[in-house]
Amino acid sequence: MKKLWSKGGETLHPAVNQYMVSRTLAADAAILPFDVAASTAHVRMLATVGLITNAERDQLVAALAEVLALHEREAFVLTPEQEDVHTAIESFLSEKLGALGRKVHVGRSRNDQVLVALRLYVLSELEGTMAEILSTAEKILAFARKHEFVPMPGFTHMQHAMPSSVGQWSGAFVEALLNDGEVLKSVRAQHDQNPLGAAAGFGTGVPIDREETTRELGLKKVQVNPIFCQISRAKFDALTLAALSQVMMTLGRIANDAIIFTSQEFGFFAVDRALTTGSSIMPQKQNLDIMEVLRANVAIVASLQLRVQMAAHNLLSGYNKDVKIDKEALLEGFRITRDSLVVAGLLFEHLTPNEERLLAAFKDAEIFAADQANRLVMSGMPFRDAYRKVGEELSTLKPEDPVTNIRSKKHLGATGNLGLERYEAAISELKHPRS
Amino acid sequence: MKKLWSKGGETLHPAVNQYMVSRTLAADAAILPFDVAASTAHVRMLATVGLITNAERDQLVAALAEVLALHEREAFVLTPEQEDVHTAIESFLSEKLGALGRKVHVGRSRNDQVLVALRLYVLSELEGTMAEILSTAEKILAFARKHEFVPMPGFTHMQHAMPSSVGQWSGAFVEALLNDGEVLKSVRAQHDQNPLGAAAGFGTGVPIDREETTRELGLKKVQVNPIFCQISRAKFDALTLAALSQVMMTLGRIANDAIIFTSQEFGFFAVDRALTTGSSIMPQKQNLDIMEVLRANVAIVASLQLRVQMAAHNLLSGYNKDVKIDKEALLEGFRITRDSLVVAGLLFEHLTPNEERLLAAFKDAEIFAADQANRLVMSGMPFRDAYRKVGEELSTLKPEDPVTNIRSKKHLGATGNLGLERYEAAISELKHPRS
Amino acid sequence: MKKLWSKGGETLHPAVNQYMVSRTLAADAAILPFDVAASTAHVRMLATVGLITNAERDQLVAALAEVLALHEREAFVLTPEQEDVHTAIESFLSEKLGALGRKVHVGRSRNDQVLVALRLYVLSELEGTMAEILSTAEKILAFARKHEFVPMPGFTHMQHAMPSSVGQWSGAFVEALLNDGEVLKSVRAQHDQNPLGAAAGFGTGVPIDREETTRELGLKKVQVNPIFCQISRAKFDALTLAALSQVMMTLGRIANDAIIFTSQEFGFFAVDRALTTGSSIMPQKQNLDIMEVLRANVAIVASLQLRVQMAAHNLLSGYNKDVKIDKEALLEGFRITRDSLVVAGLLFEHLTPNEERLLAAFKDAEIFAADQANRLVMSGMPFRDAYRKVGEELSTLKPEDPVTNIRSKKHLGATGNLGLERYEAAISELKHPRS
Amino acid sequence: MKKLWSKGGETLHPAVNQYMVSRTLAADAAILPFDVAASTAHVRMLATVGLITNAERDQLVAALAEVLALHEREAFVLTPEQEDVHTAIESFLSEKLGALGRKVHVGRSRNDQVLVALRLYVLSELEGTMAEILSTAEKILAFARKHEFVPMPGFTHMQHAMPSSVGQWSGAFVEALLNDGEVLKSVRAQHDQNPLGAAAGFGTGVPIDREETTRELGLKKVQVNPIFCQISRAKFDALTLAALSQVMMTLGRIANDAIIFTSQEFGFFAVDRALTTGSSIMPQKQNLDIMEVLRANVAIVASLQLRVQMAAHNLLSGYNKDVKIDKEALLEGFRITRDSLVVAGLLFEHLTPNEERLLAAFKDAEIFAADQANRLVMSGMPFRDAYRKVGEELSTLKPEDPVTNIRSKKHLGATGNLGLERYEAAISELKHPRS
Repeated sequence: MKKLWSKGGETLHPAVNQYMVSRTLAADAAILPFDVAASTAHVRMLATVGLITNAERDQLVAALAEVLALHEREAFVLTPEQEDVHTAIESFLSEKLGALGRKVHVGRSRNDQVLVALRLYVLSELEGTMAEILSTAEKILAFARKHEFVPMPGFTHMQHAMPSSVGQWSGAFVEALLNDGEVLKSVRAQHDQNPLGAAAGFGTGVPIDREETTRELGLKKVQVNPIFCQISRAKFDALTLAALSQVMMTLGRIANDAIIFTSQEFGFFAVDRALTTGSSIMPQKQNLDIMEVLRANVAIVASLQLRVQMAAHNLLSGYNKDVKIDKEALLEGFRITRDSLVVAGLLFEHLTPNEERLLAAFKDAEIFAADQANRLVMSGMPFRDAYRKVGEELSTLKPEDPVTNIRSKKHLGATGNLGLERYEAAISELKHPRS
Repeated sequence: MKKLWSKGGETLHPAVNQYMVSRTLAADAAILPFDVAASTAHVRMLATVGLITNAERDQLVAALAEVLALHEREAFVLTPEQEDVHTAIESFLSEKLGALGRKVHVGRSRNDQVLVALRLYVLSELEGTMAEILSTAEKILAFARKHEFVPMPGFTHMQHAMPSSVGQWSGAFVEALLNDGEVLKSVRAQHDQNPLGAAAGFGTGVPIDREETTRELGLKKVQVNPIFCQISRAKFDALTLAALSQVMMTLGRIANDAIIFTSQEFGFFAVDRALTTGSSIMPQKQNLDIMEVLRANVAIVASLQLRVQMAAHNLLSGYNKDVKIDKEALLEGFRITRDSLVVAGLLFEHLTPNEERLLAAFKDAEIFAADQANRLVMSGMPFRDAYRKVGEELSTLKPEDPVTNIRSKKHLGATGNLGLERYEAAISELKHPRS
Repeated sequence: MKKLWSKGGETLHPAVNQYMVSRTLAADAAILPFDVAASTAHVRMLATVGLITNAERDQLVAALAEVLALHEREAFVLTPEQEDVHTAIESFLSEKLGALGRKVHVGRSRNDQVLVALRLYVLSELEGTMAEILSTAEKILAFARKHEFVPMPGFTHMQHAMPSSVGQWSGAFVEALLNDGEVLKSVRAQHDQNPLGAAAGFGTGVPIDREETTRELGLKKVQVNPIFCQISRAKFDALTLAALSQVMMTLGRIANDAIIFTSQEFGFFAVDRALTTGSSIMPQKQNLDIMEVLRANVAIVASLQLRVQMAAHNLLSGYNKDVKIDKEALLEGFRITRDSLVVAGLLFEHLTPNEERLLAAFKDAEIFAADQANRLVMSGMPFRDAYRKVGEELSTLKPEDPVTNIRSKKHLGATGNLGLERYEAAISELKHPRS
Repeated sequence: MKKLWSKGGETLHPAVNQYMVSRTLAADAAILPFDVAASTAHVRMLATVGLITNAERDQLVAALAEVLALHEREAFVLTPEQEDVHTAIESFLSEKLGALGRKVHVGRSRNDQVLVALRLYVLSELEGTMAEILSTAEKILAFARKHEFVPMPGFTHMQHAMPSSVGQWSGAFVEALLNDGEVLKSVRAQHDQNPLGAAAGFGTGVPIDREETTRELGLKKVQVNPIFCQISRAKFDALTLAALSQVMMTLGRIANDAIIFTSQEFGFFAVDRALTTGSSIMPQKQNLDIMEVLRANVAIVASLQLRVQMAAHNLLSGYNKDVKIDKEALLEGFRITRDSLVVAGLLFEHLTPNEERLLAAFKDAEIFAADQANRLVMSGMPFRDAYRKVGEELSTLKPEDPVTNIRSKKHLGATGNLGLERYEAAISELKHPRS
């Protein structure tokens, strides 16, 4: 199978192909469906502007559908010799349709072909990630509701600070995930523009219709400047991975809290054995190591953003193959984030508060010190004076009933008024956006 | 001047204060105006809910205005002993107003006080950055218009690829910056929620009204969950810096292109001597080193994002002082980005295309190879066949008139139809957003 | 096949295993030979201290040899259910040797087992990398010798600065690589200590002899403190990857120079077609994209270091599974670095200076300005005066013969005295270290 | 005061100087003493090779000594107009010595002048850092000795694993720091080569003697190739910062352990109030926030390495001003690392084990499970069988006396044989290296 650029007679050093292709072939398989979709839109446009006939269009569209069907039953195998998925598809078309297959590449280049395929891939993955965000948010919300008024110490500097609750703790992650969903939505809006037609990065002499492919692809607008289309690749990659990092930062907090709060010393929560593994030498161990792997994955996603950003640093405008490492980075980033969302949801389905241990943390009355100072304020003492007075008389502080305490705080977001119902509305809005 | 948490008798090891405060004091000065604004809103709310009288409110609001006035004439000096700007302001109020000054901190904590001040600071800086994005975009757009049809080779893999133009090259940066502006706008929307009232991270027992401070601050909604408010700090920092990196990635491309294109070998552009510096030993040198500094700054901003993200990794939910390094990171990030935008605008005001050198790049007819293949396609040959035929007969290619070539390409984004007028509309829309 | 920690009856949620194991299994295969070596040393020690008999030792050693033999003919397959290579080996021994196989794990844990296996793996890879450094250095040295006195402009700020030579340019990479070799050697010295016997991270109650396994493994000393052994994992990973980044930084410079210097505008070198690929739409293109992939790989290795460093951030002392992501990072880091060294060597075997273009860069006499100032100094003028005089009279500068110029500079490192013979000695010293 | 490259008549745009100089001026002050040292060596060499007379040499050397003396009493002020410290010094010499001052720059360039000054600065800082490593290691060693046999649970996955001790825990950091010292020593060896004489990056036409300046500076060898000298700048920066990250990774572990182990739930250690601060609203709080700041600083140093590495990515060989950001990065990196070492030493001087809480962790006999399995092994049962038996009969495990347990383990590194005496020897060796 020849490379697209082969004019015969070239003898590429074998190390070159091996060095360049090996890492990206798996990623190429993942974007195949999106290349088929974009190629189909391209073909339809070629017919609209008269570069091929309607009959030719139908043949090409059918053959592209066949590529997808073969791919779906794992019968469309990419080989390193083909260099990439774009070559493999054109080769298939040429073999199947002869001269007609050799017509398909007019008015585009692999540079915009891969751009648009990646764009569609990212849009699809963002949608899938959003669905998992909402599903995980719903699981945590159910947990928050169930344990809304279970007291739990609130920590600052990893020291007991003020009364909090299991509802407030877990509710934080619901709101964080919904916020992450908003970030993803805004990144989605950035991707909603069509680079197809940028060709090699400078447009083409053939009278293509970019508005037409934009319509065919269901994208919002043409990404106009072909050089910007090229420049935007690494930029959009970085933005996408930054958004995934937002999700991973939320999940990493969950994982780290879960590890600390299930330690013997804390014991705030028990986790089902179905989620723990053992040790090779310590018979008693039940390790929540899945949350450790999740934490490490936060670092992986962060490093992937850095990778695409650094690789694009100091490149001359126009296509440079350096940016091609984004394929693997995006695939890895989305896979990790989506899997991690599932695993985080699983955690909350297998987590049980240990109320005895949670309440024990309130035995030391110091956790009520700020509340006591606030009561002095309510009786007219300036806050700083109340603060100092309580601070000087810490040993006289009296324990309170934690449940009464947390239920008594009524401002929006306080333990007695978490506003969980708002999250349901927000989930619904993200599921069925009006705009 | 005592620390807020001083109850008398503590003897803090001097190394502790030195280690913790020294780096952040400059940053604290920068957020002072925003702390004053947030404190004013807090004070007004305290009066609304009856925790202070209207007369007390007026005294506190006036004293806060005085803080700002002193700050503006550099008469409000922060000292390391004060620990931070919040302490300095409360101390000022207490000294000036006695017991009333000691009332101001009720219903909030430094944890939400700094959160809201940083939020307002970021919103303000995002607005300033947006203005500079638009100003720089306008300067580049003027350049693109002026040289719209000056031919320039387009490069892929740093090799001559196809005909392009100075208009297409510079227009790419206009569109890139406008896109960056959209990203900033979406990040702005994330910041448009009020964390004030989260207190230490778990709410407060005092009956504050968070909707009221939200209105006072002109923010869109309450950031409900106090633990999420805390978690969001490093997340929003990372998001903000990721958005600034989008701008810096655009500017880095400009800088790197400028350096390469003004080298003796390329010579595509000349840059005014006002922007170049010399060498200590080579009398002939005129270095565009300002663009090298800009390139390096791209790396600094990227590293700042990493910094805040890594510092927040594996922290227990609730406030931990680790996140405090964001002050310096945000300040540095905004300062660099805004200065770099100005410098990039300056470049285009001092850049002149060298048409002779640009045209010389078209003497080798190979740059027209793809266009020639496209012409064969227009006469009916399948593209891949045309491609191979031209490839085999490269030596017979004839040079074309570059201007005619670039003017002839008419699809949206092509050199003959850059769509520069769209950018003007986009600039106007970003300046005066309808939403 | 049961997990090592299985006591029967557990039902691990399938998502847990999938989430944790999938990424690391390939890496596990790569460290199998090193686990076999370390397990063999462990078994020998067990016999020495009397925990098993000599006959048992021989059976276990033979079975371990069989594992290796099976692995080498790809007949020892790891499955996700086995969790890791350590489990797979112990399972094999238990199946083959019954009770004896179940004895092998006494006095160690998977925590130190994987530590020592990774240690041996890294030592082996460092040795392989060193060999490739020397081989590539030799290729570049041959190139430097061949073109030692071919004039080439030296650049600062990407502008012509002073006369240089192809020998000086390429010689720089030889010295850089030899320096990188020294760095690798020093990192190797860090790894030359034995963590086996740290067990789960706190030692063991069994009377093992760690000096004995250290001798068996040919390592220099015992890594004493078991908690330090655990802590050192991520630290040594970061150090190893930092050393690989040193190599990649050198290679990245080569790649970037090659791309720029083979552009049409520079044309300083021609590269064999065997190393270039083509474009899908521009028939004339010959892209040195292998060097672009190399450049991008510099970013990948940098990101891998960041990854292991961030993943280890804020972990409690003692083993946490977060650090397990190092396997993939090390494998990828070494593979990329070693492949990149080969590719860089290949480049210099296929690179030819274009003397005509190189000499053309000397036509503008300004490149001799500093030399002219130096001549005025030799006749007694203070340097800064000479500098200013030449600067004012730039237009009167006369071109010189570049070859005469570069040959005339005789201090160590100057173009007329590159000291290339030193590199040969250094290569030989690194090949056959005396220490 | 004129710039070195000024030939009169230039009008540099004010924004250019501001953008380029502002960040680096403070760093320039820090390297002044090293520029004086290197300039002195340069001047002596100029006399040796006859480019100046011995009398001139003496005048210049005396004037350079005056610069240093002025600097030490803060009377040598750098201004942005001077661009950098090198300019300021040459200006001072010219003003003081007239024509003789204008002679000093022959045979060098600012490019190698700053390289050698940074080299000397790094060597000096490495020495200072080493001294602080040893001082902190000694403090921790004293702590480890004092509490050598205080039992402490060992953790894996943040769960109780096996008996450990305060001696083993703190001893780990001693060995880690000594290992970091070894890393610093090896990095020091890399820096021990002289780049002076590389001039602008291509050598000079003046007959300098680089062996002579090497001797004068007390460096080990000439860094031969001038282009390599330039390339090595960012490489050595990255290496230096990677070594500092090794130290910071050790200190970060200490900080994180200290925070977790002093939480109310753990309570393993108490820390002196002299090291803690308070809260603005919670009167009871005593926060070990200095350790949080230390943890965050680990991220800062990691980000500094990334910064210099990314800034140098894809630069053409030869000097580019991008690398200049290393000044600030090195200064910040050394300052943070050295201050953090001091703070970590302080911690161990103010830390007290809470034996009651530590012993409480041994009440649950499960922590002895592995020890019990090992005992069954000693009576002849295969380890895996013993492991399973203990695992099945966990509830029958009997608590042991922790002190007896930890003292009974005698292999090297085990709790009964920590090998602390080895550290003393190692500290002494690092203090007075024989090589």
